Amino acid sequence: MLPTILDIATLKDGYRRGAFSPIDVVEAVIARIAAWPDSAVWINRVGDTALREAARALVAAGVPGEDQPLWGIPFAVKDNIDCAGLPTTAACPAFAYDAEEDAYVVARLKAAGALLVGKTNLDQFATGLNGTRSPYGAPRSVFDERYVSGGSSSGSAVAVASGQVAFALGTDTAGSGRIPAAFNNLVGVKPSRGLLSSFGLVPACRSLDCITVLAPTAGDADLVRRVAEGYDPADPYSRTMQPASLPHDRFRFGVLAGSEREFYGDAEVERLYDAAILRLEGIGGIPVPIDYAPFRECAQLLYGGPFVAERLAAIESFFADHADEMDPTVRGIVAGAARYSAVDAFRGLYELEELRQRTAAEWAKMDVMLLPTAPTIYTVEAMRADPVTLNSNLGRYTNFVNLLDCAAIAVPAGFRKDELPAGVTLVGPAFADSALAALGDRLHRAAPFGMGRDRQAALPTASALTPSTTGLIPIVVVGAHLTGMPLNHQLIDGGGVHLKTCHTAPGYRLYVLPDTVPPKPGLVRDPAYRGGGLEVEVWGLPPAAFAAFVNAIPAPLGVGKITLDDGTSASGFLCEPYAIVGAREITELGGWRAYITESAATDSSVDA
Amino acid sequence: MLPTILDIATLKDGYRRGAFSPIDVVEAVIARIAAWPDSAVWINRVGDTALREAARALVAAGVPGEDQPLWGIPFAVKDNIDCAGLPTTAACPAFAYDAEEDAYVVARLKAAGALLVGKTNLDQFATGLNGTRSPYGAPRSVFDERYVSGGSSSGSAVAVASGQVAFALGTDTAGSGRIPAAFNNLVGVKPSRGLLSSFGLVPACRSLDCITVLAPTAGDADLVRRVAEGYDPADPYSRTMQPASLPHDRFRFGVLAGSEREFYGDAEVERLYDAAILRLEGIGGIPVPIDYAPFRECAQLLYGGPFVAERLAAIESFFADHADEMDPTVRGIVAGAARYSAVDAFRGLYELEELRQRTAAEWAKMDVMLLPTAPTIYTVEAMRADPVTLNSNLGRYTNFVNLLDCAAIAVPAGFRKDELPAGVTLVGPAFADSALAALGDRLHRAAPFGMGRDRQAALPTASALTPSTTGLIPIVVVGAHLTGMPLNHQLIDGGGVHLKTCHTAPGYRLYVLPDTVPPKPGLVRDPAYRGGGLEVEVWGLPPAAFAAFVNAIPAPLGVGKITLDDGTSASGFLCEPYAIVGAREITELGGWRAYITESAATDSSVDA
Repeated sequence: MLPTILDIATLKDGYRRGAFSPIDVVEAVIARIAAWPDSAVWINRVGDTALREAARALVAAGVPGEDQPLWGIPFAVKDNIDCAGLPTTAACPAFAYDAEEDAYVVARLKAAGALLVGKTNLDQFATGLNGTRSPYGAPRSVFDERYVSGGSSSGSAVAVASGQVAFALGTDTAGSGRIPAAFNNLVGVKPSRGLLSSFGLVPACRSLDCITVLAPTAGDADLVRRVAEGYDPADPYSRTMQPASLPHDRFRFGVLAGSEREFYGDAEVERLYDAAILRLEGIGGIPVPIDYAPFRECAQLLYGGPFVAERLAAIESFFADHADEMDPTVRGIVAGAARYSAVDAFRGLYELEELRQRTAAEWAKMDVMLLPTAPTIYTVEAMRADPVTLNSNLGRYTNFVNLLDCAAIAVPAGFRKDELPAGVTLVGPAFADSALAALGDRLHRAAPFGMGRDRQAALPTASALTPSTTGLIPIVVVGAHLTGMPLNHQLIDGGGVHLKTCHTAPGYRLYVLPDTVPPKPGLVRDPAYRGGGLEVEVWGLPPAAFAAFVNAIPAPLGVGKITLDDGTSASGFLCEPYAIVGAREITELGGWRAYITESAATDSSVDA
Repeated sequence: MLPTILDIATLKDGYRRGAFSPIDVVEAVIARIAAWPDSAVWINRVGDTALREAARALVAAGVPGEDQPLWGIPFAVKDNIDCAGLPTTAACPAFAYDAEEDAYVVARLKAAGALLVGKTNLDQFATGLNGTRSPYGAPRSVFDERYVSGGSSSGSAVAVASGQVAFALGTDTAGSGRIPAAFNNLVGVKPSRGLLSSFGLVPACRSLDCITVLAPTAGDADLVRRVAEGYDPADPYSRTMQPASLPHDRFRFGVLAGSEREFYGDAEVERLYDAAILRLEGIGGIPVPIDYAPFRECAQLLYGGPFVAERLAAIESFFADHADEMDPTVRGIVAGAARYSAVDAFRGLYELEELRQRTAAEWAKMDVMLLPTAPTIYTVEAMRADPVTLNSNLGRYTNFVNLLDCAAIAVPAGFRKDELPAGVTLVGPAFADSALAALGDRLHRAAPFGMGRDRQAALPTASALTPSTTGLIPIVVVGAHLTGMPLNHQLIDGGGVHLKTCHTAPGYRLYVLPDTVPPKPGLVRDPAYRGGGLEVEVWGLPPAAFAAFVNAIPAPLGVGKITLDDGTSASGFLCEPYAIVGAREITELGGWRAYITESAATDSSVDA
């Protein structure tokens, strides 16, 4: 009855149709957890009885309200995030404490109706990208138990990719929310820093940590991110979302070039990266080779410089007394922090600023960046034999993101010949989260890779994202700004997004303005006229671009309110009445495009 | 012939009128430097011959171009900023080196025609706010040689306040560009971090340092700031100006309250602060008591925490070999940095973020903050007896500014009964520099305190600043948005600035729209009509507010281009023609305000 992968859209659809209830889903979750052969996924779980009771309580409370968009959705939480009533271990038994309070984001998810299933394994203190650094065992990729699951959000990724929960919270400082998404055919959303409160999180690097979402689709992950986010004065790094948009069409995406294309010999992952570039081109992007060197140098700064002192700052008193009870690799990394002075720390910050300036020159060439999520994948055995170097290889394309205050989304990119998965990541500026999710979803849906371990699963259309219009101001265009017309580029250049093509309400007349270059129409409202409405396009513009656009419109045109055929009204092009005196009326043609087509036909017949 | 104080506006006026030339000014500069009794002002000077030659070369090249707004203006540079051909000492002879290249900002000022006179004394390595920490002596306040000049830009302030140069560059990490302005009756502009490139500056705290301008008026200082600023990829902290505006009227300004009003017993400075509050209220501000505690805690972080390690980072190898050749107080401060680890440094950064969140709650109450620049002033003798505590007292209201990424302007605030000056500082958000300069200028001109040591000097009207309109989009309002009308608050709330009251060009007709609440007119262009134009107001709105404002205008009104009586055109309110059918035309009244007055008169006569 339930699908192999428990995506949110399918669960919500089943609940709506009455095909199953949260009580059924919870039974399936309990059964699947018991049946999954890898015992390293979970560290602590909500008891089966309590989980069943929580589901029954939801059902007993009746139909969910609009404030419960995650009603009955089972989820897992990485075990460095507090959940009241469960221990928080950070994968270090000696460090464990009983959480008295839910983390801010966990409280929000529960309030939205989500069902907490338990706490998942991780690289100890979230220090690692591979999933082998835990006394609770090394979770394995759902595709091959010899291979790492990726980390540090290892258990979270496997729990979702194996259909045990619908989504999971991870965390990400160096790539910990993205690498395990890649190794388990999932989407991993790394929100802009500060959107998801870190209250209740065991820090790795406090200035860089982000709570993340692992889910089967970008739509699911984006939904969870939006539910979880919110300004929290208790988190010193909390910020309020100020949505940044990305162009919908003809967006420029940076790609690796030259010697910076490094896959450590993995030709298959390189092939899958190239295929993703073609897919992104296919949905309207323009690839731009960039110089990855400053990003790589930034990545190296994270573990190779004084930032590692943040990891010691996070657990300093524990480390002083219990270092010998830690994973030896993690201990070695944290111990290395002690050699850095405050002078070193500030030097590291200066170096970061220098790199930020260098990367700014690359950002000027692109709207978004497309990178391999990880350059390759390793076996658990290989990772254990060389834990630091191979981990560093995994982070080559992820480590810089948090340091440079970027948002990112990792999406599946297909399978190597040996049936191990690979991923690609879209990286954008801070606060472009919604726009990145929509773009990531389009990229994900451009090729069928299934969801998690089910390579045949179709991505539910219900979770498909439309390009984000949050923060955009709609404007109705009538003439030279229509798609394909001479001034349409003004909308594109301003970050405009085509929202819809529709008609005005009846009661508008259209005229050809004399002597305009390029030719432009004038739209005038005449409430007495009962025509059929005129074809127009509605575009969305970011506020600053809208302001500049409106301010640049020359007389006799201006922006008023236009009523559309669905009864709504929006800002749009109107014409001063003096300008249409003696002008040809073309209302009967139904719109400017029809007039242009007619003119072209007339012109060519004259030529002939 | 030349005034006591060499302000830029007066010099430019004299050059324009031919009253004197840069050659005359340079002679006066040379004579005044020789005559000034305080030998601690300059560390190195451009030779008299070279200075005369530079002036002659300017004159020989003929009338200055528009790219030379500082043509023939003599200036001084604090001796921690490189000037090619002169040593840079940072007030530490053992550290001195010959500068091979001009600092970025010095090069820009020279290119604009300014004449470099020499390098001024400072607290060694810009570590201090008092001006006594230099082996080159302690420059004294121009008002009383027993008192400190303030620092660390001590020589720069005295050189301007004594009429030896027209302006001077200082630097500011903790208040070094503001405190000496207060102690010498000058304006001190502390630009937003990154606007003036730090290329060629000996760092104090690289992440916080700002090059500043000391001048007799806000207009002069703002002009120099605009000439000097520019994005410089060679400075890792360089940023591009993205102008932030402040409301022009009814702006809320934060003031000290309760136990945070600390003047260390100086009732006179407290009186002058209160008088400044009244003056700012008098020009349209609304005082808002704020909780200064988080700002104070932030101020304490600068010297009392790991940020002091930045001072060691700046000179670490020099310090290792030459600490014994340093000023003992500065040496003690820098030596204290060695005890901080990288963990401490990151803890300090976390604490700063926590304070930033707490100050954000205070910023929500105000647009700008008005603080005493310094709570009191000390004698050189007192300062030498207790150099650390008294210095810390001086920085009580300045230290937080750079840490919290604010812009600031210090302006004169009058004189104590003993004829020593005090100052107040306006602090605003990053990039509000132009708006702060305009507000600071209005505050400065609201009471006559003279300029520098000349307490009788009138501030030249030529340097008066009009409120900044940089980045504002003009909008012509016709009816309910006029000053005093019911919807005017929409402009004010959006940060709107009243730019002017004027008339439209002939060819516009005005109608009373029926059934509008509040009553609104409709303006329609009729090119055939030859009326006298209608009275309107032009307001400026920041782009985002303009976008929201335009998008919220209901039909039948909209925004097109309106031609004004000076022939220019701007965005403004127009009306769709269908709405004026049958409406009363009031064009002959000359504007909406006349109609409202007429209606009120009619209404009251009916009542009577």
